[in-house]
Amino acid sequence: MARHDGRKPNELRELKIKRRFTKNAAGSVLIQTGATTVLCTASVESSVPPWLKGSGKGWITAEYNMLPGSTPTRKSRKVDGRTTEIQRLIGRSLRAVADLEALGEQMITVDCDVLDADGGTRTASITGAFIALVDALQTIQLPIPGKFPLVDSVAAVSVGLVNGAGALDLDYVEDVDAEVDMNVVMTGSGKFVEVQGAGEEATFTEDELLKLIQLGKHGVKQLTAAQAKALGKKWLW
Amino acid sequence: MARHDGRKPNELRELKIKRRFTKNAAGSVLIQTGATTVLCTASVESSVPPWLKGSGKGWITAEYNMLPGSTPTRKSRKVDGRTTEIQRLIGRSLRAVADLEALGEQMITVDCDVLDADGGTRTASITGAFIALVDALQTIQLPIPGKFPLVDSVAAVSVGLVNGAGALDLDYVEDVDAEVDMNVVMTGSGKFVEVQGAGEEATFTEDELLKLIQLGKHGVKQLTAAQAKALGKKWLW
Amino acid sequence: MARHDGRKPNELRELKIKRRFTKNAAGSVLIQTGATTVLCTASVESSVPPWLKGSGKGWITAEYNMLPGSTPTRKSRKVDGRTTEIQRLIGRSLRAVADLEALGEQMITVDCDVLDADGGTRTASITGAFIALVDALQTIQLPIPGKFPLVDSVAAVSVGLVNGAGALDLDYVEDVDAEVDMNVVMTGSGKFVEVQGAGEEATFTEDELLKLIQLGKHGVKQLTAAQAKALGKKWLW
Amino acid sequence: MARHDGRKPNELRELKIKRRFTKNAAGSVLIQTGATTVLCTASVESSVPPWLKGSGKGWITAEYNMLPGSTPTRKSRKVDGRTTEIQRLIGRSLRAVADLEALGEQMITVDCDVLDADGGTRTASITGAFIALVDALQTIQLPIPGKFPLVDSVAAVSVGLVNGAGALDLDYVEDVDAEVDMNVVMTGSGKFVEVQGAGEEATFTEDELLKLIQLGKHGVKQLTAAQAKALGKKWLW
Amino acid sequence: MARHDGRKPNELRELKIKRRFTKNAAGSVLIQTGATTVLCTASVESSVPPWLKGSGKGWITAEYNMLPGSTPTRKSRKVDGRTTEIQRLIGRSLRAVADLEALGEQMITVDCDVLDADGGTRTASITGAFIALVDALQTIQLPIPGKFPLVDSVAAVSVGLVNGAGALDLDYVEDVDAEVDMNVVMTGSGKFVEVQGAGEEATFTEDELLKLIQLGKHGVKQLTAAQAKALGKKWLW
Amino acid sequence: MARHDGRKPNELRELKIKRRFTKNAAGSVLIQTGATTVLCTASVESSVPPWLKGSGKGWITAEYNMLPGSTPTRKSRKVDGRTTEIQRLIGRSLRAVADLEALGEQMITVDCDVLDADGGTRTASITGAFIALVDALQTIQLPIPGKFPLVDSVAAVSVGLVNGAGALDLDYVEDVDAEVDMNVVMTGSGKFVEVQGAGEEATFTEDELLKLIQLGKHGVKQLTAAQAKALGKKWLW
Repeated sequence: MARHDGRKPNELRELKIKRRFTKNAAGSVLIQTGATTVLCTASVESSVPPWLKGSGKGWITAEYNMLPGSTPTRKSRKVDGRTTEIQRLIGRSLRAVADLEALGEQMITVDCDVLDADGGTRTASITGAFIALVDALQTIQLPIPGKFPLVDSVAAVSVGLVNGAGALDLDYVEDVDAEVDMNVVMTGSGKFVEVQGAGEEATFTEDELLKLIQLGKHGVKQLTAAQAKALGKKWLW
Repeated sequence: MARHDGRKPNELRELKIKRRFTKNAAGSVLIQTGATTVLCTASVESSVPPWLKGSGKGWITAEYNMLPGSTPTRKSRKVDGRTTEIQRLIGRSLRAVADLEALGEQMITVDCDVLDADGGTRTASITGAFIALVDALQTIQLPIPGKFPLVDSVAAVSVGLVNGAGALDLDYVEDVDAEVDMNVVMTGSGKFVEVQGAGEEATFTEDELLKLIQLGKHGVKQLTAAQAKALGKKWLW
Repeated sequence: MARHDGRKPNELRELKIKRRFTKNAAGSVLIQTGATTVLCTASVESSVPPWLKGSGKGWITAEYNMLPGSTPTRKSRKVDGRTTEIQRLIGRSLRAVADLEALGEQMITVDCDVLDADGGTRTASITGAFIALVDALQTIQLPIPGKFPLVDSVAAVSVGLVNGAGALDLDYVEDVDAEVDMNVVMTGSGKFVEVQGAGEEATFTEDELLKLIQLGKHGVKQLTAAQAKALGKKWLW
Repeated sequence: MARHDGRKPNELRELKIKRRFTKNAAGSVLIQTGATTVLCTASVESSVPPWLKGSGKGWITAEYNMLPGSTPTRKSRKVDGRTTEIQRLIGRSLRAVADLEALGEQMITVDCDVLDADGGTRTASITGAFIALVDALQTIQLPIPGKFPLVDSVAAVSVGLVNGAGALDLDYVEDVDAEVDMNVVMTGSGKFVEVQGAGEEATFTEDELLKLIQLGKHGVKQLTAAQAKALGKKWLW
Repeated sequence: MARHDGRKPNELRELKIKRRFTKNAAGSVLIQTGATTVLCTASVESSVPPWLKGSGKGWITAEYNMLPGSTPTRKSRKVDGRTTEIQRLIGRSLRAVADLEALGEQMITVDCDVLDADGGTRTASITGAFIALVDALQTIQLPIPGKFPLVDSVAAVSVGLVNGAGALDLDYVEDVDAEVDMNVVMTGSGKFVEVQGAGEEATFTEDELLKLIQLGKHGVKQLTAAQAKALGKKWLW
Repeated sequence: MARHDGRKPNELRELKIKRRFTKNAAGSVLIQTGATTVLCTASVESSVPPWLKGSGKGWITAEYNMLPGSTPTRKSRKVDGRTTEIQRLIGRSLRAVADLEALGEQMITVDCDVLDADGGTRTASITGAFIALVDALQTIQLPIPGKFPLVDSVAAVSVGLVNGAGALDLDYVEDVDAEVDMNVVMTGSGKFVEVQGAGEEATFTEDELLKLIQLGKHGVKQLTAAQAKALGKKWLW
C-alpha cells in the first residue's frame, strides 16, 4: 500500500542538517526532516548537579520544547507531561554514548526547540542533539587530553504500523493514523539505546514488534551516515 | 549466575492481590509483589474531558504517586518527570484493552499510590490497576447493557539484564545493578501494548533485546493467571 | 437520642492499630477507626531545618494527605488550605511531647496518608503518628544514651454536638450533621495539647463547650490505652 | 506578676477603630490594638462560588495577609500555611453570625491586610472585619427588604499563659514567651464561635484551660462594646 | 478644555505625605495624591543578592502591590505582568540616585502597597518610596561615615493627552480617557531617570511628545519641593 | 568617537528578513539584525479573551521568549519580569496600528522567540512581528471584505548614550556600556507609539533625551523601508 507522500515503506524523509545555525551557543544545529524543523543548541556550564559534586564526573542533560508557532493550531507554552517524558529520553540517549568521566566536572545541556512540527520531533531532536553535543565538546577543555567524552554516536527514528503496514520515519499524518508507534534509538555501531513501542488504544503482535525493530535499524543506519557527513573530517569513528 | 534472593532467572516474586482493600473507592486493590506494595483505587466521574464532550465516548486515565514513606530515604511529595511519564504509561495501557464507546460518557481515574517501593512499582501498578478497573466498572451503569467496556485484560512486568544475564521481575537491588531495564505490557490474549527498553549509560544488542522480550512474555502470562484468579468467576474471558 | 450506628454518646468506633505495615519507613503504622484508615510512616533525616543548624536540637514535623480514592467522590491531589492546617496541627501535637534536645540534630517527618476517609482523619492521624514516631525513634542513635526523646504520649479524638447532643468520635455522617465540631489533643498523662472547637455557621454556649471538653478527655484516655497496648513492653511510661 | 507593659492581667491594649479609611472598598476599617494595625476592607461581588450557584444563598469569605513591612525583619510575600489557616478562621467567624440566605446570591470578601504586627493580628482582623462587613452590607441591595444578613456581632481576642499566669490580648513579646496561646472568638450575645488553644512544645491543665476561656470572655465583651460604639446608631442589636 | 475635577492642565492633585505611619519598618511613608493612597515601607537586610556578594556594594529593590480593596471591584492577589513591570521601574528609579558603594553590602527593599487606587499609583510609589528610603538609610550603619548613600532625590508624575489636551497627574477617570499616557521620573537636580510614554491603541506626534515632557518636568519640580518639606532639616541638598 | 564595530553613530546593523521561515504558523518571519536573530510566528485563534466576547472586536497579543541557547551562558527557561514587560510592549505596539473591529472576533498571537541574542531583541521582535502579523492576516477571513485590520505599519529600534555619545541600534557590547538606553517604537507614517528611555544607575539631561529621540526616528525610517521591501507588492501604504 502506498504512503500518502509517495515514499517507500523503508524510506526516510529528506534530511537537512545545518551546523552553527546560531552563534552564541557552543553547539548549534538546525535539523530538518521533511517539514519537521528542530534547533538543537548545546551549552556548557562549569558546575554539575549536586549529586556529582566532587565525583570527577560530568553530566549531559536535555530540554525539549515546542515553540507555540510550530503547530498549525498555536501550542501554549505550558510544560506538559509529554514534554518531560521526551526530554528525559533525549538526555538518556546522549548519556548512553558518553564517557562522563572523560568529560570531567562539567555539564552540557542540549536544548531541542521545535520550530516546525510534522511528526518525529523527538527522534529528530536526538539525531540533531548528538551533532550539537559534538560541536560543544570541541570547545571545552578536557580533563584527560586526547580522550574525547563520546564513545559512539547516537541517532533515532520513529517507525510505525500504518493501516497494518510498517512505515519508516512517520510524518504527522501517518502518526495520527498509526496503530502502533515505536521510537528506536541506536548507536553508530549498531547497539540499541532505547526501544519504545506503544499502541494507543491498540495492541500489536510479536511478529509486528520484530518487523518494526528491523525497520528502525535500517533507518538509524542512514541517519548515522548523515551525521558523519555533517560532522566531516572532525568526527570519525 | 544466581540472583541475590535465590530466584531463578525467569521467576516472579511472591504476588499477593487483595481486592476491596478500602471502602470508599469504587474499585480498590492492594497489590504486593515481593516488598513492593501499591494501592490501586478506581473512581468514577460522570464528566469526561472537554475534547470528548458529546462524543458518546468515555475516558480512562491514571495517576501514579509514591508516598513519602515508601522509600528508605523519605521521598518528597513533589511531582517529578518520572511520575508524569509513569502515569501516562498506566493510562495508555488500560485504554488499550478498553472499549471507550461501551463505557459511554463517563471517566474512570485509577490512582496508583505506592506504599512500599522495592522495584517494579510501575508494572505492579498496571497489573493492580486493571483489577481495580474491573471492580469499578461493575458498579456503573453501562450505555449498552451487557456490553462490558473491556475487551481484554492487561498486565505488566519488568525484565532486565543484570550482570549480563536476563532476569524477570527485578527488585530494587537488581534494578540499580541492571545494565538494561525493560517494561513489557501485554494483554491476556498475548498481544503487546507497550515495550520500553532502555539502557541508562549503556547499550544492548539485538539478541539481548529479543531475549528480554521473551522473558517479559513469560512473566505476563503468570500475572494474567493471577489476575483471573483474584477476579474469580466474575471476570472470564 | 440514638446515634445512627447504634453507638453510645461516649463510645469510640472500633479501633485497629497495625505496626510495621510497610517495610521501608523507619516507623509505619496502619490505624483504623471505624471506616477511617490512615497510614502513618515516620522517616528520619540527618539534617534539620536551617534555623536549627548548630543548635544541637532536632525537629519533628508532619505531612497530611488524603489519597484521591479515600473519598466516595475522587479527591484531587491538589494541596488545599485544610491540608496545610491539619499538618501543622499534627506537627505541633507531636512536638508537644518531644524533647527536641534529646533528639539531637535529626529530623523526623511523619507522613499521614489517609487511605479511607470516614470522619476523624486528623485525630486518627495524631494517634497513629505517635506510634510511628516511637518506632522510628527506636531505630536511631540518640545523642544522650538512655534519654528517649519523648516525655509523654499524645492522642486525639473529635467530639461534637449532633442534633444538640454531645457525641464522641464522629464519623462522616455525624460530622456533616454536627453543629459544633471539636478536636481534643491530649497527652497520656492527662494534659491538654490542643483544643479546637468551631461552629461552622453556628455558635455554642459555655456549657456546651465544657461538656465537649469532658467527652474529649474520656475518649483520649481510651486511645492512650490502645496506644500503650500496641506498643507493648517496648514503650512504658 | 507584672506584665512588661504595665497592663493588668485582664486588660486589653489601647484600641482604635477608624471606619471609611479608604474610599474604593465598600467597607474599609483601620483597626489598631496597641502597635498592631490591620486594614480590613470588604468588597462585594455579584457572583458566588460554583457550589452555591442557583441556591439563593450568598457567601462571605476572607483573605489575610501581612505586608512585608509589617514586621521588624521584612516578611516575604509568599503565602504560607499560617496565612491559609488564619483566613479560614476569619471566614468561618464571619459566617457564624451571618444569614447567608438573607444575603442572596452575592459574595463579600473581607481582606485583612496587616500593616503593623505586634501580636494578635488574627483576632484584631476578626474584630475589624466584622465592622467592614457591616459597612459593606449597608451598600448592597438585599433580597428580602428589611432583613439584614447579620444575626449577631462577632469579635475575637487572644489569651495566654505567660510565665504561668493568664494574660489577655498578648502583644508580640508576650506571645513569644507564652506557654499556651488561645484565640477566643465570640458573638455579641455571648456565644462561642471558635476556641483554639495550643501549647507549642508545651501542654496545659484543665484548670488552666477553663481560666483562659473566662479571660477570653471578659475581653470579647469589651471589644463588642467598642464595635457597637464605632458603628454608632446605624448598628444596634 | 476644563478637567473633570476643575484642575488646571498643569496642576497636581492635593498631596499629603505622612512619615512613620507604621512602627516596625525602618522607613514608613503614607503618601496620598488625591484619592490615591500608597504605603511605602523600607526594610533593611544584611545580605545582598548572590551576584553582589563580596563586591562591597549594596542593593536597593522594590516591590509593588495593589491591595484587593484598593479598587472599586475587588482585585485578586495574583501577581500579574503589570505588577512586575512597575516594581522594576520603582527599583531602577531609586538606584539611579543611590551610591551603592556608599551603602556597603546591605540591601534595602522598599514595598509600595497601594491602599486606594485612583490613578498614578506607580508614580506616587516612587515619590513616597524615596522618602521611606531616606528614613531607612538613617537607621543603618554606613561603611564610610558621613557619606550618605544617596546623591540626589527622585520623584515621578504621570502626564497624558486627554481629549487632545495635555494634563498633569491624571486620576483614574482621566487615565481611562487618555490617548497617551507618560510617566516621567526625574531627580531633584532636574535630570531624567525614566521617560515612558505609550499610546494604547493610539499614537502621538513629536510635538505632543515634547509637550508632555515639559509638563512632567513642571510636575516633578513641585513633588521634589514637597519631599524636601516632608523630610525637613534632616535631608537637604 | 568610533563604535567598536566601525559603524557610524546613526547606522543600523545589517538587517535580514526572511518570510515563511516555518510552514505551520500562519505568519512566520526570521529577522536578523547583526547577530541578533528572532523567529516571529503569528497564529490565529477563533476565540477572543473573555472581556471581548460578543463585542465584535478582535485582539492581538504577543509572547516573547529567549531560547536557552540564545545567550553565551545558557539562559534558564523560567519566565522573569523582564520577559513579561517585553511581551506587553510588543502587544501594545502591534495594537497601536491595528483596527480591532476590522479584525472581527478573532485573536492573533505573535510569538517572538529569540534564537540568538546580541542586543536589541525586543525592538527586532516588534519589527519582525509586524511582518508576521501582515502575513497571518492575509490568511484569514475578514468581517468587512476589503477592510484590512491594519491602519499603519510599526517598527522599533534601540538608541543609547554610549560613553556620552548617541548611538543607533546598540549591540550587546554597547548595551552593557550604555549610560542611557531608549527604545523607540514608531509607525510607518512617523507617529510615536512608545518611547521608553531609562538610565540604570544613571540619569540624562533634556538635551540628551531630545537627541536620542531624533536618532530613533532616523532608525525607524530605515526599518520601515526594509519592512515594505520584504512585504513586496502585497503591502503598500
